[in-house]
Amino acid sequence: MAFGFECLRAFRDELKAKGADIARTAKKVGKDDPRRVIHSLKVGLALTLISLYYYFQPLYDGFGVDAMWAVLTVVLVFEFSVGATIGKLVNRIAATLSAGALSVGVHRLATLSGETGEAILLAFFVFLVGSVVTFTRFYPALKARYDYGLLIFLLTFCMVTVSGYRDDDLFEIAHKRLSTVIIGSFTAVVICVCICPVWIGADLHKSVVNNMEKLGDFLEEFGAEYFATSEDTEQRNDKSRLEGYKSVLNSKTTEENMANLARWEPCHGRFSRQCAYKLDALYCYLSSEIKACIYRIKNEGYLIDQFGADLLTQRPAEIESKIREPCMIICSECGKALKELAGAIRRSNLHSPPVSRIEFSKAAVENLKCTLNSQPLWEDVEDVLDVIPVVAVASQLIGVVSCVEKIAGAVNELASLAHFKSLDDTVSTAHEEPQNILHNGVVVPISEPANHVIVQVDGSSNALPENNSSSETPVISRS
Amino acid sequence: MAFGFECLRAFRDELKAKGADIARTAKKVGKDDPRRVIHSLKVGLALTLISLYYYFQPLYDGFGVDAMWAVLTVVLVFEFSVGATIGKLVNRIAATLSAGALSVGVHRLATLSGETGEAILLAFFVFLVGSVVTFTRFYPALKARYDYGLLIFLLTFCMVTVSGYRDDDLFEIAHKRLSTVIIGSFTAVVICVCICPVWIGADLHKSVVNNMEKLGDFLEEFGAEYFATSEDTEQRNDKSRLEGYKSVLNSKTTEENMANLARWEPCHGRFSRQCAYKLDALYCYLSSEIKACIYRIKNEGYLIDQFGADLLTQRPAEIESKIREPCMIICSECGKALKELAGAIRRSNLHSPPVSRIEFSKAAVENLKCTLNSQPLWEDVEDVLDVIPVVAVASQLIGVVSCVEKIAGAVNELASLAHFKSLDDTVSTAHEEPQNILHNGVVVPISEPANHVIVQVDGSSNALPENNSSSETPVISRS
Repeated sequence: MAFGFECLRAFRDELKAKGADIARTAKKVGKDDPRRVIHSLKVGLALTLISLYYYFQPLYDGFGVDAMWAVLTVVLVFEFSVGATIGKLVNRIAATLSAGALSVGVHRLATLSGETGEAILLAFFVFLVGSVVTFTRFYPALKARYDYGLLIFLLTFCMVTVSGYRDDDLFEIAHKRLSTVIIGSFTAVVICVCICPVWIGADLHKSVVNNMEKLGDFLEEFGAEYFATSEDTEQRNDKSRLEGYKSVLNSKTTEENMANLARWEPCHGRFSRQCAYKLDALYCYLSSEIKACIYRIKNEGYLIDQFGADLLTQRPAEIESKIREPCMIICSECGKALKELAGAIRRSNLHSPPVSRIEFSKAAVENLKCTLNSQPLWEDVEDVLDVIPVVAVASQLIGVVSCVEKIAGAVNELASLAHFKSLDDTVSTAHEEPQNILHNGVVVPISEPANHVIVQVDGSSNALPENNSSSETPVISRS
Repeated sequence: MAFGFECLRAFRDELKAKGADIARTAKKVGKDDPRRVIHSLKVGLALTLISLYYYFQPLYDGFGVDAMWAVLTVVLVFEFSVGATIGKLVNRIAATLSAGALSVGVHRLATLSGETGEAILLAFFVFLVGSVVTFTRFYPALKARYDYGLLIFLLTFCMVTVSGYRDDDLFEIAHKRLSTVIIGSFTAVVICVCICPVWIGADLHKSVVNNMEKLGDFLEEFGAEYFATSEDTEQRNDKSRLEGYKSVLNSKTTEENMANLARWEPCHGRFSRQCAYKLDALYCYLSSEIKACIYRIKNEGYLIDQFGADLLTQRPAEIESKIREPCMIICSECGKALKELAGAIRRSNLHSPPVSRIEFSKAAVENLKCTLNSQPLWEDVEDVLDVIPVVAVASQLIGVVSCVEKIAGAVNELASLAHFKSLDDTVSTAHEEPQNILHNGVVVPISEPANHVIVQVDGSSNALPENNSSSETPVISRS
């Protein structure tokens, strides 16, 4: 008896611990994105409305076969974002209509050929359509946007064909079913759009801005951390900004998916519908450029991991002191420029493009190149393996500057496309070649440095040292 | 009239071109993986069987509402791999049963409280369950494996609750529906498993082996290409092996997904069920190590892209000639070692672990370190920016050797876990610490070099130069 109580108590304690664990996870999931809680409540509301509608409607026949379709539609169509919901809705309705029409046609054909002939023909068509549609779902282009539609097409076709309705039944049932599906979809979309809508296009916008800010933070922090003198190092212990780049690198599939879904969204807020398509392509381009930029520096972040914190003390002070200044200028100016650009996208105005910061960084690059090639630099080197990381960092930073320039060019273009507030006249000269970047939505990044747009905006470029390629290469090559 | 014909002809031509395009894509999709064609035919077959069964069965009532559920089950459950199909099946049946039971309970409760009370209670429960289940779908752990089950749970609960059956109806309908679902699932699973089954576990196995081989190819080719003398360069034009690493880097999400699905698969072939779990974890670990290894060299691949083909001619020949030999040894020996290990996993026997190759590479590393630190190396350097890439490559290759060692250790462990044929006695000493790597299926890679297992296997390690950490660090830290 006592043993039984003991067991019960142990079980209760375990249950309590499990419960606390679940609650903790729930709190975290909700805190990460509070819109998730709202979304859950919205789904609950939509289902309740649908169920009440069918519970109270006078024509309710007590078997609920039709009401079922409305519920099914709400559960399957209601997604987190407006784009995903509308995409599923369009897929569902188009697939249901076309599959229904096809199966009615097949049925007519089959009934013409006697009792046995009918069964054989129907079986043949089910096999044919089933195989072909399943194979079609492997097409990469269709899989990305129409997978759900293909599934529903196959489902509807088989269901209607197998059910074997007579024609007159069929039309009545089709009418009922379609109306319930439309009621379900309508409820889902109205609630999804009207109550705290989640626009995936806005999320994509925000994600690009965040990535840019993280990159800017990382650059600034990296410069301050890596080239810090030993007194500085003791003061700073917060390395969280250095970790930011990791999350940026893992965002590729998520962002592609977002851009796919954003295409379903209607015009909203300040962006016009036609513009939205182009913005998606531009965002994808921006985020690929940001990633290219991070990849360069990540190599060095990797070197830091590899050599550990000792790196900061072990490396030869002589070389470092000579290249510290230009490197720190590049890091801090590029970082600030990126954050200013990110802020411009966030506020949707580009009052002052950070042209001077970029020109300043370019001057630092020239300075750095001269220092690295001067002979006295290498006189006191003892262990070459110690020097390599520092010099490799310097050489990558040179590449980072041209990356940041490309990003600035793309943001300028974005500003003119999305009609940012208070664009000054000089910026609108960049307006001439948007088709270069947005060539049918396909953006082909190239690796050459491109200071084209910036030089146009500023005009004072002659006073500063330039790369050879400054006025030859356009921002993006035509594909 | 002539214009009409013209239009028709143009339309016909366009249709032809479109058709040819679709056929070409179809051929490519089928050629990439011929099992896709077989899968499509299998789905067609399953649907035909189900539809014929319902078409001919004597109890068929002409409305096909129940037959519909069998068709629906086949379409929704039949997936490409056995693992995915069984996973969906288990999710579907468990969710249907539990949601059905819950909704019957809720219904009983609601009927106790009068006409209006019933409607209010039902609406309340629909809202509650809808919100909670939708929120639960955001839990990352549940989303990976049970998302489909949660969706079906919600669907079933709402459908049964909204339909408002009386109790006696309910049990009859539940019985009918369950039997049709079981018939559908049974058909899907039998056809999926019996006709050319696609085991996702075997795919994961193959993917890891392929990645290892690609990495080995890349290393060999990289060494030959990068450190080639100018005569050599003219002979080799095939760079396809250098491109292999790109596909390896993008395989992360795919492989995680594969490991998730593989857990649903029953024992088959040579692996026992209990072992399969551990193998999944080990494969994930292997593939993360391979990726870490590639990341190191990819930096250099990136440098090649950046500096272009000129790099091969421009860089200073003096330095290069001094470090060429050890670098080429590391590349070719590590590449061959990886390919031998991959071959061992493919054939499931580890006759001769490539211990000597790894020891040889380690000797080359010591050699390389000495060369880099010798003063005369740096005497004739003119442009430091030209030297950096070559020296950076050398420094990364040093890291690659310890990566390859870790991979070899993991393969040894795999061999003892999966009971590879003809393991010699020495290898089984590595058997002592499998729980280190397979700590509850969570594998935590660390970045320290680990020659633990290899040294045990060989025993001749004292004769060769060693890292400081050689006998202290275990392969994997306990988390």
